Amino acid sequence: MSGGASDLTGKHLVAGDELSPTGALFGGINALTGEHLGPDYGEADAATIGRACSAAGELAPMFAASEPAMRAKLLRAIADGILDLEDTLVERVMTETALPRARVEAERGRTVNQLRLFAGLVEEGSWVDAHIDHSVPDRAPVPKPDLRRMLVGLGPVVVFGASNFPLAYSVAGGDTASALAAGCPVIVKAHPAHPGTSELIGRVIKNALAAAGLPAGLFALVHGRTHDVGSELVKHPAVKAVGFTGSHQGGRALFDLAAARPEPIPVFAEMGSMNPVVVLPRALAERGEAIGEQLVGSAVLASGQFCTSPGLVLWIDGAGSEALLAKLRTGLTAAPSGPTVHPTIRTGYERTLTELEGLPLEAHVSTAPTESPTAVCPRLLTTDATALQDNPRLRTEIYGPAVVAVRCRDAAELLASVKSLTGHLTATVQGDLQDLRDHADVVAVLRDRVGRLIQNGVPTGVEVCSAMVHGGPYPAATDVRFSAVGPTAIQRWARPVCWQDWAAELLPAELREDNPRGIRRTIDGELVSG
Amino acid sequence: MSGGASDLTGKHLVAGDELSPTGALFGGINALTGEHLGPDYGEADAATIGRACSAAGELAPMFAASEPAMRAKLLRAIADGILDLEDTLVERVMTETALPRARVEAERGRTVNQLRLFAGLVEEGSWVDAHIDHSVPDRAPVPKPDLRRMLVGLGPVVVFGASNFPLAYSVAGGDTASALAAGCPVIVKAHPAHPGTSELIGRVIKNALAAAGLPAGLFALVHGRTHDVGSELVKHPAVKAVGFTGSHQGGRALFDLAAARPEPIPVFAEMGSMNPVVVLPRALAERGEAIGEQLVGSAVLASGQFCTSPGLVLWIDGAGSEALLAKLRTGLTAAPSGPTVHPTIRTGYERTLTELEGLPLEAHVSTAPTESPTAVCPRLLTTDATALQDNPRLRTEIYGPAVVAVRCRDAAELLASVKSLTGHLTATVQGDLQDLRDHADVVAVLRDRVGRLIQNGVPTGVEVCSAMVHGGPYPAATDVRFSAVGPTAIQRWARPVCWQDWAAELLPAELREDNPRGIRRTIDGELVSG
Repeated sequence: MSGGASDLTGKHLVAGDELSPTGALFGGINALTGEHLGPDYGEADAATIGRACSAAGELAPMFAASEPAMRAKLLRAIADGILDLEDTLVERVMTETALPRARVEAERGRTVNQLRLFAGLVEEGSWVDAHIDHSVPDRAPVPKPDLRRMLVGLGPVVVFGASNFPLAYSVAGGDTASALAAGCPVIVKAHPAHPGTSELIGRVIKNALAAAGLPAGLFALVHGRTHDVGSELVKHPAVKAVGFTGSHQGGRALFDLAAARPEPIPVFAEMGSMNPVVVLPRALAERGEAIGEQLVGSAVLASGQFCTSPGLVLWIDGAGSEALLAKLRTGLTAAPSGPTVHPTIRTGYERTLTELEGLPLEAHVSTAPTESPTAVCPRLLTTDATALQDNPRLRTEIYGPAVVAVRCRDAAELLASVKSLTGHLTATVQGDLQDLRDHADVVAVLRDRVGRLIQNGVPTGVEVCSAMVHGGPYPAATDVRFSAVGPTAIQRWARPVCWQDWAAELLPAELREDNPRGIRRTIDGELVSG
Repeated sequence: MSGGASDLTGKHLVAGDELSPTGALFGGINALTGEHLGPDYGEADAATIGRACSAAGELAPMFAASEPAMRAKLLRAIADGILDLEDTLVERVMTETALPRARVEAERGRTVNQLRLFAGLVEEGSWVDAHIDHSVPDRAPVPKPDLRRMLVGLGPVVVFGASNFPLAYSVAGGDTASALAAGCPVIVKAHPAHPGTSELIGRVIKNALAAAGLPAGLFALVHGRTHDVGSELVKHPAVKAVGFTGSHQGGRALFDLAAARPEPIPVFAEMGSMNPVVVLPRALAERGEAIGEQLVGSAVLASGQFCTSPGLVLWIDGAGSEALLAKLRTGLTAAPSGPTVHPTIRTGYERTLTELEGLPLEAHVSTAPTESPTAVCPRLLTTDATALQDNPRLRTEIYGPAVVAVRCRDAAELLASVKSLTGHLTATVQGDLQDLRDHADVVAVLRDRVGRLIQNGVPTGVEVCSAMVHGGPYPAATDVRFSAVGPTAIQRWARPVCWQDWAAELLPAELREDNPRGIRRTIDGELVSG
């Protein structure tokens, strides 16, 4: 097999060239033992970044106008290439992130499925949302021109790999797949928590471009641990959009840089969330213990390293509340410690918990052993509605397996508590139909603050499908109008272009009268099947 | 007739209340004579702005979930109310802006049509882009949940009225119509160039809300001449989006304020453009003089006060170029002076022309009389490709009836010149099929820089239809992914929300299994008619 872990080089992949790391070097680490893993990677310098962005910029108009079939072929070749890596990839991911095999294989499946989903989307072609308004030459007082519009890729996209999903939100993850599908060149900033995994996938993309006969400059993979690399990428004038999944601090910094450019560009930063869970009275009375068990399972999954981990649970004290609280306490404190994907995640978790000291809450902590440099222990932090409302820090994500439990005295306190929340990716309501009717005000407030509302489930588990919304009001994401998951994620990287009275022979195929691509179009205001 | 000009009060309309102007007062003026028009208007203070925004914020979730039929009724009532004002409105607009009757009546028609277009759009209902993915309870390894998604209004929108379209881009213009259609409360900052027109329309909206039984707080109209009013509005935490049409300076300032908020919000600022016109060699040889005539007509229309006025024309010297140049020169210098909508526009035009002095260009100026305080004279500014590329100011909009004409020596200079351009709303190519083929590189560069490409026409005349794109790469607009004109303009003010495993009885009607609204939906990946 080509491109195996033994072939890792530590080099930046830029416009077909391989550039050796320079400056301060860093390597991957074994996330269970802390052991250093070769090869060494380095900080991409300004020249490297400049080459990657300029090459992407020069190719962007061509790629935006490229044959969709060619882009679909590329995406499928990337998917196939990922599978061809077989255990070389799975094992490198497991070593670099401490994620178990089943999870890594499932995430690989999701990644491959996402690439194929976008291949299918561009092959089918209707995503360009073609509109044709025919001319009316004899309209008074002025003739109506012929107008045709469709979406095209908006130019080079910088994608920041996420630490917690080394495949599905990383080098060939959803951002890259949707950007390439739209016809946008992609420059990936590898996450330093899994540089070897990133290089393996980066080489798959490089090889897939070559096999498809496409220019190497359509993709670049650069490394770095400092903010400088990301900052240089976002500020480069050839870059036209940014995709990011990670911390609030990181996402906001990139958003601010992008907004301050001479030419501001769109940033879709998905920055995590507390994913509040509200347990309503009838559900609490009937299923308090079961809900507690379900919540503990969701909260400790992957050591709480999901954007959708439930980090906040609220209820009105009453029948069932002691059972729920007891289950949360015993479940979380009895849970073993679990590994995070990198020692920096453990450090961040512990730092956040230290920041919480002194706030009016009671901590219930698992005391499982944490010899591994990445191990973290779940914990339950109980508090009340007044404390939640008075302390913004309690309403802010704790990245890791911690749950803040808020006991409210009555419905008014519950409503005031949810009103105090900012934007989140999801909110979950545990309740039957009567509960939802009795607390319609709470539900309305939650709907106003999230991208996805869940009844009687858990927020973890983000289905990749057309109805999914993975995003939400700030600070869940920096643009509430888009989703990072599902086929509509492509809309983040496309812009409408209109051709007026344009020569029929020179229109894009999607807009020609005879509809050679057979796509669905809106013609004179009516949707017409392909 | 109620709400006539004699009933103007100068008051801010806020949440059903009428607040008298305070502080430094200003009035409308007769744009032909400079004569002051009553009543006096004042700067909205922080308390007034706070009331308007808070009321809108409190009502936003209700309005986002309101019956589409109710919103359609509101939009139609506003349209009817505008027509009911009859000549009271037309005459006030004519007086405040010096626009001729035919133009005002045409713009009123467009405004009414836009309101009715959005009424029809929300009545039909499919704009919410509903997606339903049914559950698969027996899927392995985990069940697939039921997921349903649709677009909902994203909250209160602040709309800044534009000076150049006192109706179509002002109080009840495209931004307001599309925002109300989406279910967003609207707070309008009236443009100080036509405060009386703004109050007349504002009262129509206030009355239409009352007639529809909707809360008055869904709309506010506030006045002001300083930046403070706009700044306070954009910074208010209840505000969730901003629509602006105007100068680059103003749009960028609001964008920067919105991006710097604790919760950044989307801003769609359409900031004008030079709308480059490239005359290719065969067209130049065949139709040089006719193209010149067509361009002059477009450039002096409304004294150059359109966002789409052609302000830059480029060609390769050769057969026909002298005829084109002669026609541009004689046409523009022979044209009479024309009024602008406000003395500040004349001042700005003259200031810009002063800034251009010293740059390598030759000015050809009409010397028509300009007694009126708003009168401006057309002018032609000729230069060459080197000067264009060396002087960014020559590539920046001159708001008013000025045309920069760029003579290129060869195709390479033409290509380099268009490559030096930033984003524009439109680009026009004068050329036949062979021209477009011979200069495919120029066309590709233009396509990369604009929202709308026109062949053999003029950029003025923005058709309100589904295929229109009115927007473009920065600095034409602050978000290249949206259009300010046409039904898709509603997408600027909506966000997707997903309901997972939600009680069927409590889903929005658009997402219920039996599709009571009869809308088009994507069900399990397939588009299904209503």
